[in-house]
Amino acid sequence: MSVSMIHNEDAPLHKLDELSGRKILAYNKDIMMVEVHFKTNGRGAVHTHPHVQCTYVRSGLFEFTVDNKPVIVGPGDSLVFESNQPHGTLCLEEGILVDVFTPMREDFLK
Amino acid sequence: MSVSMIHNEDAPLHKLDELSGRKILAYNKDIMMVEVHFKTNGRGAVHTHPHVQCTYVRSGLFEFTVDNKPVIVGPGDSLVFESNQPHGTLCLEEGILVDVFTPMREDFLK
Repeated sequence: MSVSMIHNEDAPLHKLDELSGRKILAYNKDIMMVEVHFKTNGRGAVHTHPHVQCTYVRSGLFEFTVDNKPVIVGPGDSLVFESNQPHGTLCLEEGILVDVFTPMREDFLK
Repeated sequence: MSVSMIHNEDAPLHKLDELSGRKILAYNKDIMMVEVHFKTNGRGAVHTHPHVQCTYVRSGLFEFTVDNKPVIVGPGDSLVFESNQPHGTLCLEEGILVDVFTPMREDFLK
């Protein structure tokens, strides 16, 4: 299972709720890259998953809750979450996060 | 070994050559995110490594050689390279690539 190259405009934006949506970008069985588009006040509720995750802020301003502490991140800032580490975000200014998971998120393809 | 959050301006830009440099962003043992900054005509020579890699184009325009074929990618486009798959790039317009590796690149910390 592999998508070796994907142009951004060819990836459909799947609506998650009124204020957020996800694009699945390149992936194989070991790694998956997605964009999450947020409008201001959009939220990613605190959650966990076994996959290790890196997040890169492409644009916008976000508050993350990491180990019960708030951190504010903007373009070019990055975070890593261990397997099953609780994490969540609040979008302070409309923008895009690039989330990368290892292994890939089978659940995102359903 | 873990850097759970890093502000972009706190990551030093390590010069690779006259036309490129690397910033190490968030990582743990399983995953590592880096930025590679290229000026126009900068090159990443075709190379291989055992790590699986995803690449996200933050800005600029790049030609990649994938399976001996050239592909041109711009902002938001993404690629994935299998373990030991040869890959390289030529920067057509100054920009930044976000490379993500699993497992992390111990060799980048030396």
